[in-house]
Amino acid sequence: MRLTSYTNYALRILMVATMRQGELVTVHEVAETFGISKAHLVKCVHQLGLWGYLENVRGRNGGFRLAKPAETITVGEIVRKTEDDLNLVECFDAVTNTCPLIGICGLGKTFKKACSAFLEVLDSTTVADISANRREVLETLSPKWAEPRPRKRA
Amino acid sequence: MRLTSYTNYALRILMVATMRQGELVTVHEVAETFGISKAHLVKCVHQLGLWGYLENVRGRNGGFRLAKPAETITVGEIVRKTEDDLNLVECFDAVTNTCPLIGICGLGKTFKKACSAFLEVLDSTTVADISANRREVLETLSPKWAEPRPRKRA
Repeated sequence: MRLTSYTNYALRILMVATMRQGELVTVHEVAETFGISKAHLVKCVHQLGLWGYLENVRGRNGGFRLAKPAETITVGEIVRKTEDDLNLVECFDAVTNTCPLIGICGLGKTFKKACSAFLEVLDSTTVADISANRREVLETLSPKWAEPRPRKRA
Repeated sequence: MRLTSYTNYALRILMVATMRQGELVTVHEVAETFGISKAHLVKCVHQLGLWGYLENVRGRNGGFRLAKPAETITVGEIVRKTEDDLNLVECFDAVTNTCPLIGICGLGKTFKKACSAFLEVLDSTTVADISANRREVLETLSPKWAEPRPRKRA
């Protein structure tokens, strides 16, 4: 039982964007800092832009920033969008199910309850919540990130 | 995010064994009823025997039955044994982790909390609980299973 890297990257991107407080972040920076493939991040940043979570600015001094307040984005909504398959067991999907006990099985009901408890935690946590210890994280990631950066001329 | 078929089969086997109340169940019956590969079930039944959950009786009139009261077996303990990987994200495993934020990341903490909420439901549910609607399930699976079966001579 594992979440996809895509989910993990999407949430890290939103967390970094929140912590950088409107300053443009580049994919290159995130890739270097986390040791993640740039190609995977580009896809993820693009998709988060299409969903309206990021504003993507093209060009030499481009990058991405949060497009809506971090307090309004829950971890749960991102996980639901990025995970292809939240069907913990085959019977969660009536189309592919082969078990004759669908609907009456105590095991299926237990898994549904456990999955709800899992998502409830994620639904009650916002991107602002996971970004609350901003200074500590930025200092760990890159000391430079914690300092105000000089504005580049366009 | 999906549980393995192995987990799913292990719990179905324990559920059927509980419902059959000490009567020997064959792998063939379970395979036919659920439309599951016999080879997969054999492995699973063998392992559940090694762990002390099933008593496996060899021979022509052999089969398996529960080796301990269903009230004492939780769904959570089976899932922990059968799932190779309950590390929802890479940072749950300090050995394979590559993220520099391990230990201070709000996202990791949120996933840990969600995973605990998930397992808490499974830990508070026993195999007896998921087998409570015995008659309804047995009638659905196989009308014959719901009737007392004539004893075979050894």
